[in-house]
Amino acid sequence: RRAEVTAAAAVRQSKREFYASLLKEVEAVLEGERNWISGMANVSALVFHGLRPRGEAHVNWVGFYTRTNAEGRLLLGPFQGEVACVVINPGRGVCGAAAARKETVIVPDVHEFPGHIACSDKTNSEIVVPMFNAKGNVVGVFDLDATNLRGFDEEDRAGLEAITQRLMQLVDWPHDW
Amino acid sequence: RRAEVTAAAAVRQSKREFYASLLKEVEAVLEGERNWISGMANVSALVFHGLRPRGEAHVNWVGFYTRTNAEGRLLLGPFQGEVACVVINPGRGVCGAAAARKETVIVPDVHEFPGHIACSDKTNSEIVVPMFNAKGNVVGVFDLDATNLRGFDEEDRAGLEAITQRLMQLVDWPHDW
Repeated sequence: RRAEVTAAAAVRQSKREFYASLLKEVEAVLEGERNWISGMANVSALVFHGLRPRGEAHVNWVGFYTRTNAEGRLLLGPFQGEVACVVINPGRGVCGAAAARKETVIVPDVHEFPGHIACSDKTNSEIVVPMFNAKGNVVGVFDLDATNLRGFDEEDRAGLEAITQRLMQLVDWPHDW
Repeated sequence: RRAEVTAAAAVRQSKREFYASLLKEVEAVLEGERNWISGMANVSALVFHGLRPRGEAHVNWVGFYTRTNAEGRLLLGPFQGEVACVVINPGRGVCGAAAARKETVIVPDVHEFPGHIACSDKTNSEIVVPMFNAKGNVVGVFDLDATNLRGFDEEDRAGLEAITQRLMQLVDWPHDW
């Protein structure tokens, strides 16, 4: 019920308003339990089911890759969407690029991104936000795919960076990498 | 593309054939990387997107709850569907019942199950399969919800138990509880 009300309201909001209310939902869902896996799982659901009814980005995948090893490989974490690539080696694809550059990467057309990893041939645009621990190390990435070209813009960057930052504040991360 | 072909084929198969080919897909996806989180994330996606086009169960949620603490609380793990309850206390709801009884629980109508936890008011039936480690301890549950009554039957039980068992063989579980 709450999700339906939120979805209907989300369509009418400006993107900035939408992300402000989505951030509040993220904070509410993460309250009271700091488990990192539960947190990532529910944040992917909130963002996926929040963005889809808006229709600017035809979002087909929202989820996390985390560094669960000292070598810098990214491994698939909780997500919403179809089955996905499990391992991303350092620097590979848009996820690897965002982790290496330590900044959000927006790709309007994945087919023009050198070394793009095609987990799904339906994906045409992508945004990847790095996740930082308290030491400033990249411990993972938050990855969103869309089936349309130019699905994500600077407002998505700002909104998703705020959500990712809040997630990292509100969960306990089990690794130091 | 692979997911579309599979979905089209899945609709024509008997449920037993469907689960046999889904088990093969699970094995293929889990091959080469034993991370428990990646494994649960991809298995929820395969089962969710595999079952939905068949239409027998109008599946609205597929995911995992795991014991990440010695006290027996279940915490939300990777899933497909809308935002979900994070904590399930010992013995509570269908998930808690399956963990306590150490056996699969099929609930044709959740409104008739004493102590049912309503994460979503769209859910009308549910199946929960316990996950066992090598010592035979319950370390989590695999939970599926459907919006129709009587969404799951004995063939779902057999198919989902086989998938859950294979998942537990093919990932490294980080806890002994």
